Amino acid sequence: MQLGFVSAILADLPLEGVLDVAADAGFQCVELMCWPRGKAERRYAGVTHVDVVGLDQGGARRVMELAAARGIAISGLGYYPNPLAPDRAEAEVYVEHIRQVIAAARMMGLGVVNTFVGRDWTKSIDDNWPRFRETWPPLIAFAEAHGVRVGIENCPMLFTGDEWPGGKNLAISPAVWRRMFAEIPSPSWGLNYDPSHMIWQQMDHLAPIRDFADRLVHVHAKDVRLDRDRLDQVGILGHPNDYHTPKLPGLGDVDWAGFFSLLSDVGYDGPVCVEVEDRAYEGSLAARKRSLAQSARYLRQYM
Amino acid sequence: MQLGFVSAILADLPLEGVLDVAADAGFQCVELMCWPRGKAERRYAGVTHVDVVGLDQGGARRVMELAAARGIAISGLGYYPNPLAPDRAEAEVYVEHIRQVIAAARMMGLGVVNTFVGRDWTKSIDDNWPRFRETWPPLIAFAEAHGVRVGIENCPMLFTGDEWPGGKNLAISPAVWRRMFAEIPSPSWGLNYDPSHMIWQQMDHLAPIRDFADRLVHVHAKDVRLDRDRLDQVGILGHPNDYHTPKLPGLGDVDWAGFFSLLSDVGYDGPVCVEVEDRAYEGSLAARKRSLAQSARYLRQYM
Amino acid sequence: MQLGFVSAILADLPLEGVLDVAADAGFQCVELMCWPRGKAERRYAGVTHVDVVGLDQGGARRVMELAAARGIAISGLGYYPNPLAPDRAEAEVYVEHIRQVIAAARMMGLGVVNTFVGRDWTKSIDDNWPRFRETWPPLIAFAEAHGVRVGIENCPMLFTGDEWPGGKNLAISPAVWRRMFAEIPSPSWGLNYDPSHMIWQQMDHLAPIRDFADRLVHVHAKDVRLDRDRLDQVGILGHPNDYHTPKLPGLGDVDWAGFFSLLSDVGYDGPVCVEVEDRAYEGSLAARKRSLAQSARYLRQYM
Amino acid sequence: MQLGFVSAILADLPLEGVLDVAADAGFQCVELMCWPRGKAERRYAGVTHVDVVGLDQGGARRVMELAAARGIAISGLGYYPNPLAPDRAEAEVYVEHIRQVIAAARMMGLGVVNTFVGRDWTKSIDDNWPRFRETWPPLIAFAEAHGVRVGIENCPMLFTGDEWPGGKNLAISPAVWRRMFAEIPSPSWGLNYDPSHMIWQQMDHLAPIRDFADRLVHVHAKDVRLDRDRLDQVGILGHPNDYHTPKLPGLGDVDWAGFFSLLSDVGYDGPVCVEVEDRAYEGSLAARKRSLAQSARYLRQYM
Amino acid sequence: MQLGFVSAILADLPLEGVLDVAADAGFQCVELMCWPRGKAERRYAGVTHVDVVGLDQGGARRVMELAAARGIAISGLGYYPNPLAPDRAEAEVYVEHIRQVIAAARMMGLGVVNTFVGRDWTKSIDDNWPRFRETWPPLIAFAEAHGVRVGIENCPMLFTGDEWPGGKNLAISPAVWRRMFAEIPSPSWGLNYDPSHMIWQQMDHLAPIRDFADRLVHVHAKDVRLDRDRLDQVGILGHPNDYHTPKLPGLGDVDWAGFFSLLSDVGYDGPVCVEVEDRAYEGSLAARKRSLAQSARYLRQYM
Amino acid sequence: MQLGFVSAILADLPLEGVLDVAADAGFQCVELMCWPRGKAERRYAGVTHVDVVGLDQGGARRVMELAAARGIAISGLGYYPNPLAPDRAEAEVYVEHIRQVIAAARMMGLGVVNTFVGRDWTKSIDDNWPRFRETWPPLIAFAEAHGVRVGIENCPMLFTGDEWPGGKNLAISPAVWRRMFAEIPSPSWGLNYDPSHMIWQQMDHLAPIRDFADRLVHVHAKDVRLDRDRLDQVGILGHPNDYHTPKLPGLGDVDWAGFFSLLSDVGYDGPVCVEVEDRAYEGSLAARKRSLAQSARYLRQYM
Repeated sequence: MQLGFVSAILADLPLEGVLDVAADAGFQCVELMCWPRGKAERRYAGVTHVDVVGLDQGGARRVMELAAARGIAISGLGYYPNPLAPDRAEAEVYVEHIRQVIAAARMMGLGVVNTFVGRDWTKSIDDNWPRFRETWPPLIAFAEAHGVRVGIENCPMLFTGDEWPGGKNLAISPAVWRRMFAEIPSPSWGLNYDPSHMIWQQMDHLAPIRDFADRLVHVHAKDVRLDRDRLDQVGILGHPNDYHTPKLPGLGDVDWAGFFSLLSDVGYDGPVCVEVEDRAYEGSLAARKRSLAQSARYLRQYM
Repeated sequence: MQLGFVSAILADLPLEGVLDVAADAGFQCVELMCWPRGKAERRYAGVTHVDVVGLDQGGARRVMELAAARGIAISGLGYYPNPLAPDRAEAEVYVEHIRQVIAAARMMGLGVVNTFVGRDWTKSIDDNWPRFRETWPPLIAFAEAHGVRVGIENCPMLFTGDEWPGGKNLAISPAVWRRMFAEIPSPSWGLNYDPSHMIWQQMDHLAPIRDFADRLVHVHAKDVRLDRDRLDQVGILGHPNDYHTPKLPGLGDVDWAGFFSLLSDVGYDGPVCVEVEDRAYEGSLAARKRSLAQSARYLRQYM
Repeated sequence: MQLGFVSAILADLPLEGVLDVAADAGFQCVELMCWPRGKAERRYAGVTHVDVVGLDQGGARRVMELAAARGIAISGLGYYPNPLAPDRAEAEVYVEHIRQVIAAARMMGLGVVNTFVGRDWTKSIDDNWPRFRETWPPLIAFAEAHGVRVGIENCPMLFTGDEWPGGKNLAISPAVWRRMFAEIPSPSWGLNYDPSHMIWQQMDHLAPIRDFADRLVHVHAKDVRLDRDRLDQVGILGHPNDYHTPKLPGLGDVDWAGFFSLLSDVGYDGPVCVEVEDRAYEGSLAARKRSLAQSARYLRQYM
Repeated sequence: MQLGFVSAILADLPLEGVLDVAADAGFQCVELMCWPRGKAERRYAGVTHVDVVGLDQGGARRVMELAAARGIAISGLGYYPNPLAPDRAEAEVYVEHIRQVIAAARMMGLGVVNTFVGRDWTKSIDDNWPRFRETWPPLIAFAEAHGVRVGIENCPMLFTGDEWPGGKNLAISPAVWRRMFAEIPSPSWGLNYDPSHMIWQQMDHLAPIRDFADRLVHVHAKDVRLDRDRLDQVGILGHPNDYHTPKLPGLGDVDWAGFFSLLSDVGYDGPVCVEVEDRAYEGSLAARKRSLAQSARYLRQYM
Repeated sequence: MQLGFVSAILADLPLEGVLDVAADAGFQCVELMCWPRGKAERRYAGVTHVDVVGLDQGGARRVMELAAARGIAISGLGYYPNPLAPDRAEAEVYVEHIRQVIAAARMMGLGVVNTFVGRDWTKSIDDNWPRFRETWPPLIAFAEAHGVRVGIENCPMLFTGDEWPGGKNLAISPAVWRRMFAEIPSPSWGLNYDPSHMIWQQMDHLAPIRDFADRLVHVHAKDVRLDRDRLDQVGILGHPNDYHTPKLPGLGDVDWAGFFSLLSDVGYDGPVCVEVEDRAYEGSLAARKRSLAQSARYLRQYM
Repeated sequence: MQLGFVSAILADLPLEGVLDVAADAGFQCVELMCWPRGKAERRYAGVTHVDVVGLDQGGARRVMELAAARGIAISGLGYYPNPLAPDRAEAEVYVEHIRQVIAAARMMGLGVVNTFVGRDWTKSIDDNWPRFRETWPPLIAFAEAHGVRVGIENCPMLFTGDEWPGGKNLAISPAVWRRMFAEIPSPSWGLNYDPSHMIWQQMDHLAPIRDFADRLVHVHAKDVRLDRDRLDQVGILGHPNDYHTPKLPGLGDVDWAGFFSLLSDVGYDGPVCVEVEDRAYEGSLAARKRSLAQSARYLRQYM
């Protein structure tokens, strides 16, 4: 396994700066954000460390050389929009950009692109399914044709009233994953598995490593802390942010020892990328750099 | 405390039959269902053991005498519609019938009516609040004028896709209760507290006994079992019935020892009514009678 | 479900006495021991409450009438030898007597016979398998032809050095049960499931109720207590009796609430027979009667 | 084992009344309070169901006959003063009365007297030891001469600031018991073991049953609930009543299943007397009677 | 947060040596002991790394320069006597020296002085309160006037029979802290919070971080292990050292992940100073240095 | 304590290579394997980093100099055959080689040789005892005469059907250790304690550190993970490898914090050698080197 981080946390640094931080803090790889240039629509979104729009062979080579020069691998390209957004025109923009990220990955010789399945958050999973069946088969076929595996992050994208009730990503649970993979059995997609989302959904966060071992395309290392005193006031029907707090690895409820114990057993030998969304460390660029260094110190004991 | 049961489980028996079962099984009281005569809209609803429409002094006296003859008290009248249903005309019917149940309670010399606050299940709690503020103050004022306390059951009324996403009752959590009682401080209402709903909402089911001791109008004794293997597949964003099972008292996850330990400490001396919604015991009237007898045997060790 | 007990604990009483105890203590049924008359080979064995050798229609009718007169059902006939004993002649005696018990059950109009699969305790499970394949298919075919279901108790029959290392019954775990039922798919056999044996084998004692719901032929209610202080000295490679103690239901580690919760959910509606092997209650007939009464009091809260 | 209760809870009833309650509620025995007539010095003290002062053979016989007439045994005589009170004159009064209770027990043909060792609560255990060595050897010799066993209850007699810091009874822990029995090895004394006192002292409440099996003279069945929310505010250096609540058996933290499991294993066959100190049930004589009936219902499932 | 240590463990090194150890082991700060020169009265006391008596601007500057030269910050000055000692003359000496430490802190440009509130250990908290009200308001006013915050360590100073029963510091629990801060609401004092003391007092050691976030003046990182086998013998009324053992961070029962998780959430950005009182590491100066290095390695994963 | 590793994992490296790895990864010592040259009989066996056959003073000195040159200590010599193998001729070869390893240790100035007691795996512990009494007293006398302590590893050597039922080493539990040390009280032997073997045998893995503190000759740091889902299928009567997985320290169920907490308390100051048997890290020499580095990083936080 290779320790890396998700570049979104260093939104204010250019690619070179991101790679420098990675090298300085002893990381082995980075997942690079590839949002289209423009205004961020939400926290951690809208970051462009690789601009895939109009990327040519020269540009692709330059990125790879910058990374190689620092001994840093690129674990995958990341772009996390809502390709099933209720506004079809908006969704089409997202889908088209995902294609461009896939094409860019191929140009860069990379095998992994991470994203969301998306969801019309006002509708149930069942009611979203027709759109899923319409949108995703061609996308995965496109990825397959380009030799790229798509890693779907298992984040419900449901935090506050804004995404209530359904959140903006269908791929939230083993039940849904099974349905997805049954629908599109292609080996060219799988999970960008993040154990933290399982915690607040009250699911076993270790069993999927065994049950979906052959679907592990990429892994995120984020932690969350369930705040029981707050949960006791609002219950699970409250907004998730009302009862849990994203934290750095080791400061939450994820069983990291068990996590790496199983990852090693199933033979996962890919990237494990720290995703920092701990507000206690977002005050300054220095604090965010420290958060990466601390995360690396913590995780290194298990890998 | 007086051990009783909710009469809905004996929908196919007339009032006399309900009272006979209560007496035979050693119960001390019953909560009598007061739905308007007509077709039931959902399981356990539409049961009419007291027909409050057009109830006069004679009718009221007759009910009380039937109960007294068997040594059975009436813990309260129950009617659980959705008074905040999106269809305002429909909601008004419910509200009007609640008033009739309150009036009937007074006529019968009873102090307790149990119901739901209701909810437009397609909307968030905040978005339901204006309707709540419109509907409930006059209802509680009406109850206060009639010397009746209204017990709001804390059931989310969210089981399957039919009630998704919000369920049909706002009064689901301590946070909401505080808001309700702040909005309408009248002592004439409070909770018909059922610990089982707290279990699947992952909330402490004992603390409310202390924290809302003066709001305990009535108590339901239902149990539920969290089915972890199923929860691990769908998570808390799945439909509640996908990961939990209502059970008889003692066959689920409620800590009944702790429950009665605290109830006795706060000086609660009212009814505790078994509510049977355990499908394993619904196959026949005989099975439902057995379920009541078993529930009584189990609970008697703590009261 | 019907509450009963295994008659072995009343070895010194004749059939009538056993049935009287059952009736007096409020049981609904009894599993009657059918060892051939003669000297007992081990504790709880060699008990003959129904002598199936030479039993004719009249004898069969008499047993049923004695039971019916007291309102007691017979949950099944029981005979627990080692049909795979290394001495083939000895084993053949056991097999032949099992056939007679099956024939007697049919004659009595009963549908259940309980026994062990047996094992050459000096050999591994694999090395016992050829003998199993030789012995059991004709036996189950015989049962099927007689309309009797055979319930195999899941007891390892391994207590002390005498049965070391393998114990005298193969049917110890879900893995073996699956192998058994794959080998002989006949619906005419299944488990006489006793949760206590799972406890000291450190297995989940509730999951089999779900996983083998259609194989539940009969159920035993025995409890055991793991003695951790003793286990810490000898470990699981020690003799089982060195680290656990059989106890009456409710005095050990079985989760009886969970047990009956699942039994009711899967629709099991057969007998649950208390098996007393708690030495603290074996001092006298009076003590053994008390142990049955206490067990009934305890279990009645859940059924 | 015989189920009984401590008569102190029925302070307002005469002996006959106490025995009637015992018989009505299905108890088998009672521990009778033998305080000298006069003003009670603390809650539950000063109760005189047998006046041992001047008791003669006739009086003794009368008490035994009253009990026998109702089928109630007397489990022991109880008197719980502070025989090591700092005021030596006061202590001497207590010691003398203990002797009279022992003499009365003999006269009544009873083998058990229960009491406290006492303590100067302002001094450490070590600093109390000289007084212990002075007071107790002659008392135990006296009991031995009378064929009576003295059961020392393991209550710290430390509840509020009044008994701070040491409490009024030395016999609080296994460490002290070992010291006591090493000092006075006579078999004529032992413990009146009450598991509840171990709970708030954060000690294993089951192990002593094994470790002091031969010192179990009498057993009290009281329960307590640790109130963690209150403990979190004051800690164990606070007054015990600030963080725990005495409760009826089954409504607290005692593991009663484990308790009776071990009692039966070590062959204890003496009385188990419910001691009611649950304030939630002290409001009226009726409530106190109900508390006894409920305790009996609860404990009967294990004995 | 800055990782540091309490200099008392290096009593045999001069200030320069302490600072060298800090720098070599990668610490960022040190809490310097400021006892008056002279004989130590107890373990870890009597250490003088800064002699505040007669300290002038030059001396103060010299200390700061020594630290700055090694890149080490001074987290605060520490002096932990018993300012409420029963001997008023003795107490006055302590109080006067606290003033001198405060004055020295100001001279050195430091904002923090750590100490104890003290206690007459023979008296209850209530009985100590008059002395507290006499002694502390002027001291805090003095600190306020000097721009220094006083951090009160929450150690009960109760270990063996010597400090029995009350210990030598009142500030042991949230209940007492609330009383202290209500009495003297000045923001110029708060807690030098050490989670280990909460452990053996059986209190939640994490909640105070949230509940007293604005009172966190300084933080100690010490760990303790509850020795349950010993606790089972003596109970909580035994001397604390009879049932717990102070250990290096990570070798005890403190939940350090939860500790730093909450510290980061409440925005605490001050010093966290390792306090070594683990006798297993006190055999030599080398061992004590190793203990500091090990503690730093352990804690660095969380900060 | 000194951190080291067992050299068997680097079977394909010569001694110098082993010592280089130790030095590079920051270990302080190594336990060197001393199997006779020839074909390995099982995984991890047959490794010869020191060839003790015919070792002379020069050879011994050369080994010590190679180690010293890299600053690496030799924690002991290791050779783990079955000296009680049923084939007496085979066993005699093992015993003779153990003597040679002991002699070599003395020649090298080392005080520790690690091995197994051995066992005829087809027989019970009792039935092995005569052979134990024959074989071991002279061996320990030999070790005593050579000033060498023999550390017996507590591994049951029972993994699959090959070693069923008894495994190839008697020294599996505290009960057996007590018997061994009672039989041969010489201080020249004790345990090479490995906590992981206690885990799957369901024994307390920390208590032995206190209970056998004076018998700790050497310590192995291996971890294992109990796979509950697999254990639930086969139970403890299944083969150990069917329900547990050896893992690197920190990736299994050993409580390493508690482990080192107690080791430090009892004053153990010897070697702690990582034993890698985690198949996830055996794919290549590079992976095995990484496993050692990771283990060191993990364990360093506690020592």
